[in-house]
Amino acid sequence: MKATYRVVAVPWSPSLICMEAVMMIHTEPQHLNQVVKEMKDHLNQDEYAEIEETINALEPVQVIKVLSRLSHRHRAIVYRLLEKDVALTVFEGLSPALQSDLLGALQEHETAEVFLEMSPAQRVWLLDELPAKVASKLLLGLDVEERNQTSTLLGYPDEAIGRRMSPRFVALEAQRTVAEARQYVDEELATAETVYYLPVVNDGRRVLGEITLRSLLRSDDAKVLKDIMRPTHTAYVTENAETVARRITRQGAFATAIVDDEQRLVGIFTLDDAARILEYEESQDVSRQGGVEALRRPYLSTPVLRLVRSRITWLLVLAIGGTLTVQVLSVFEDSLEQVTALALFVPLLIGIGGNTGNQAATTVTRALALHDVEPRDVFRVLTREVRTGFCLGLLLGTLGLVITGFIFDFDVGLIIGLTLLAICCVAASVGGVMPLIAKKIKVDPAVFSNPFISTFVDATGLIIYFLIARAILGI
Amino acid sequence: MKATYRVVAVPWSPSLICMEAVMMIHTEPQHLNQVVKEMKDHLNQDEYAEIEETINALEPVQVIKVLSRLSHRHRAIVYRLLEKDVALTVFEGLSPALQSDLLGALQEHETAEVFLEMSPAQRVWLLDELPAKVASKLLLGLDVEERNQTSTLLGYPDEAIGRRMSPRFVALEAQRTVAEARQYVDEELATAETVYYLPVVNDGRRVLGEITLRSLLRSDDAKVLKDIMRPTHTAYVTENAETVARRITRQGAFATAIVDDEQRLVGIFTLDDAARILEYEESQDVSRQGGVEALRRPYLSTPVLRLVRSRITWLLVLAIGGTLTVQVLSVFEDSLEQVTALALFVPLLIGIGGNTGNQAATTVTRALALHDVEPRDVFRVLTREVRTGFCLGLLLGTLGLVITGFIFDFDVGLIIGLTLLAICCVAASVGGVMPLIAKKIKVDPAVFSNPFISTFVDATGLIIYFLIARAILGI
Repeated sequence: MKATYRVVAVPWSPSLICMEAVMMIHTEPQHLNQVVKEMKDHLNQDEYAEIEETINALEPVQVIKVLSRLSHRHRAIVYRLLEKDVALTVFEGLSPALQSDLLGALQEHETAEVFLEMSPAQRVWLLDELPAKVASKLLLGLDVEERNQTSTLLGYPDEAIGRRMSPRFVALEAQRTVAEARQYVDEELATAETVYYLPVVNDGRRVLGEITLRSLLRSDDAKVLKDIMRPTHTAYVTENAETVARRITRQGAFATAIVDDEQRLVGIFTLDDAARILEYEESQDVSRQGGVEALRRPYLSTPVLRLVRSRITWLLVLAIGGTLTVQVLSVFEDSLEQVTALALFVPLLIGIGGNTGNQAATTVTRALALHDVEPRDVFRVLTREVRTGFCLGLLLGTLGLVITGFIFDFDVGLIIGLTLLAICCVAASVGGVMPLIAKKIKVDPAVFSNPFISTFVDATGLIIYFLIARAILGI
Repeated sequence: MKATYRVVAVPWSPSLICMEAVMMIHTEPQHLNQVVKEMKDHLNQDEYAEIEETINALEPVQVIKVLSRLSHRHRAIVYRLLEKDVALTVFEGLSPALQSDLLGALQEHETAEVFLEMSPAQRVWLLDELPAKVASKLLLGLDVEERNQTSTLLGYPDEAIGRRMSPRFVALEAQRTVAEARQYVDEELATAETVYYLPVVNDGRRVLGEITLRSLLRSDDAKVLKDIMRPTHTAYVTENAETVARRITRQGAFATAIVDDEQRLVGIFTLDDAARILEYEESQDVSRQGGVEALRRPYLSTPVLRLVRSRITWLLVLAIGGTLTVQVLSVFEDSLEQVTALALFVPLLIGIGGNTGNQAATTVTRALALHDVEPRDVFRVLTREVRTGFCLGLLLGTLGLVITGFIFDFDVGLIIGLTLLAICCVAASVGGVMPLIAKKIKVDPAVFSNPFISTFVDATGLIIYFLIARAILGI
C-alpha cells in the first residue's frame, strides 16, 4: 500500500478517493474528533506504532488540526512521529505561538533542523515568539547566507512589510532579451521563492516593471524585456505590512515588489503571505473589538488561565470606567428617591445608547481598515453620524414616547422619548469619531473598542436622562 | 510624454518615480482627497477635458478609490472618461454593489461590453446584485459558450464554492509526457485563467493530483505526468465558499481543484479569489458582531438613510429585548424604594456582565470561524467558560467586595461581590455557548451577536442582583 503512494505520489489509492473526499466535506470535524480521541487513548497507553500509522495517514492540514487539539506534551510526541517531509509542512502551518510551544518540547538538533528548512520570513514570525536566548541560538545555527537574509528582515520595524517579505526573488534586467531571461529563470527554478512574478530592474536595481512567467513564455525570443514588461505595484520596505497586504489583495495582484528609499528592489511579497497576515490581523481586530486579547492559539488548546489573562485587563479597565456610572447616579440619588420609577429605565436607556455607539464604531472602524475613511475625514464622519443618530433617535424616541406614555404617563413618555433622541445623537457621534481619533493618535482603532464606547456613553446617557427628567418633572 | 509611457509600458518616466512612490506611501490619502476635490470642482463646471486628464494619470487602484468617494451621478461621468483598457480593470476592482450602481447609470451597449469582458465568476458576483430583469438581459447578450459557463456557476447554491470557481482551467492527462504537457500548456497560455496550477486527471476527468508550471518546467521531457505529479487539495463544488477559501489560505496553496460528486474536475479556485471572499466575509462578520448590516459600499459614498437602514433593525430588536430589564426592575420596585442605593450599581453590574459575555462570545465565534471549535464541543466550551467566568468573577468580586464594603458598608460590599461572581459565571457561559447553538441551528453565529448577548445577560444579571440583595438585606 505504501509503495503505491510513492509511485503515483498521491496519498490515496483510487479506491480510497471517494472515502477521502466525502470525509473532507461532510464528516471532517466528526472524523477528526474521532482521530483526536483515538490518539489520546493511544497516547495514554503509549501505543506509538498506532499513533504513527494514524497520523501519517492524514493530510498535513488535518494533522495541523489534530495537533492543535492535543495538550502541550502530547503534541510534541505526535509531532515527532510524523514523516520528515510532512513534519516540515505541518510545522509551517502551525500558528507562530504553537510553533514556539512545540520548539520548547523538541531536542536541540531537531529544533535547528526545522529552523534551517524554514523561509526567512517564516523564521521571523517564529523568532518574534521566542525568548531572546533561544532566538539568538537558533540564528547562530544557520549558515552565513541564511543568517544574513534572516537578520536583514529582523532589522525592519515590527509592523513593517520588510519583516514579512521574501528576499529570494528572481529579478530580470530590462535590457535582456526574452530568450536570455528564460534561461536565467530556468537556472533559478530550484531555489527562488516564486518564478511566476518576475520584477524587472535597471542596472542600478531600480524597479521598472514586472513580467509574469506566463507572458515570458508567450513572448518572442528576440524581444527585449523593457518592451514587454508591464507596470508593477511597489511598496516601501518600511510600509505597514497590513496596509500592503490589503492592497495587493484588493488589486488581485500575485505579488508586489518591495523597494527601499531609492526605489531599489529589496524583496517581493506574495499573495499567500498577504493572506496569512490578513488572517492574523483579522483575529487581532475581532478580538480587540470584543475587548479581549487575541489568543494566537486554538481555543481548545488554550489553558483556562490564559483565557482569563486574555480578558482580565480589559475587564478591569471597563469595570473601573463603569464606576463612573455609580458616581453619576450618586449625584442624582435625590431624584431617584423622589421618583423611583426613573430607575426602571436606566438599563434600557444605556443599553440602547451603547448599541447605537457600537454600531457607529463598528462601521467606522471597518471603513478605516479598508482605507475608505481617513482621520482627516473627521468632520464628514461627524456630520453623517449626527444625522444618522438623529434619524435613529427620532424613530426610537417616538416609539418610546408613545409606548411609555401609554403604559405610564405622558411626562414619563416625554422624558424617555427626548432622552432616546439625545442619547442616539451623542452615541452615534462618539462612536463614529472615536476610531478616527484613535487612528490619529496612532492607537489601534479597535482598542477604543465597543466596550469602551459603551462605558463612555453609559455615563453621558445617565446625565442626559436625569437632566431631562429633572427639567420635565420639576424636581 | 504619453509616447514614453507606451514605449516602456510603465506609467511613469524615471524622473517621476520618486514622486509616484512617495505618493504611494505617505501622501496617498491626502493626495487622493485633493484629486477628489479637484474632480468635484471640474464636474460642477463641466470641465471634461481636465477630468479626463486627471483620472487617466492615476493607477487603477487609485481610480477605484476616487470613484468610491464620488456621488452616484458623478461616478458614472468620470468612469466614462477612463481609457478603455483601464476602465475594465477599474470596474472589476469595485465592490459588486458599486458595480451594480454604476451599470444602472451606463448605456445599454456599454453595459453589455463590460459584462462580456468579465470572468464567469466575477459575472456571478455582479448578477447577484442586479435586478432579475437586468441580469437576464445581460446574460442573453453573451455568446453561447460564455453564457453556458456563467449559467453553470449560477446554478450552484448561494454560498457554494461552485459559484466562485473558474471553469477556465488547464487540465493535464496523467499518462501524458512532460513534453506533451508543455506543448499543451503553451497553446492554452492566452486563454486560461491560470497556468501555474495544473490539475492532473485520468481519462474519466477524475482528479488524481496536481503539477505546478514550475515543476513542469523543471522535469525531464520524457517523464510521464503520473510519476511527477503531487497530491492536490480538492473541494466539492457544493461546499461552502468561505470554508474552502479559508482552507486554501491556511494551506498556503495557490489553488485547489473543485470536483463534483464523482470526483470529476469541474473548476479550479485560486488564492486571489479566496482572498476576495475572505475580505467580504470579514466585513460581514465584523458588522454583524457590532449589530449592523454590512454596507457593501464605501462608508463615505453611502447615503445617510442607508446607514440608518443598516442599523435600525438590530437596534429595534435590541430595544425590544431591553424592555425586559424594565419588567425585571418593576418586579423589584419595592426593594428599590426601600433601598435606593441599590439602583446606583445597576449600570455597573450589567455593564460588567455584558462585557464578560461579549468577551466569551467574541473568542468562541472566532474559534468557530477558524474551525478550531465545532458545535459538538459544546460541553468542553461550557466547562472552560464556567471556569474562566469563575476566575474572572472571583477577582472582580473580591475587588468589588473590598472597595464597596469600604466606601458603603459590608452588606452592600457582600451583595456586589457575590453578584459579580455569579454574573461573570453566567455571562461567560452564555456568551461562550450561544455562538455554538447558533451554528448548530444554522444561523450565523455573529447574528447572536455581542449586543444580543448583552441584552440577555442584562436581564439575568438584574434578577441575580436583586435576589442576592433581598437575601442579604432581608427585604
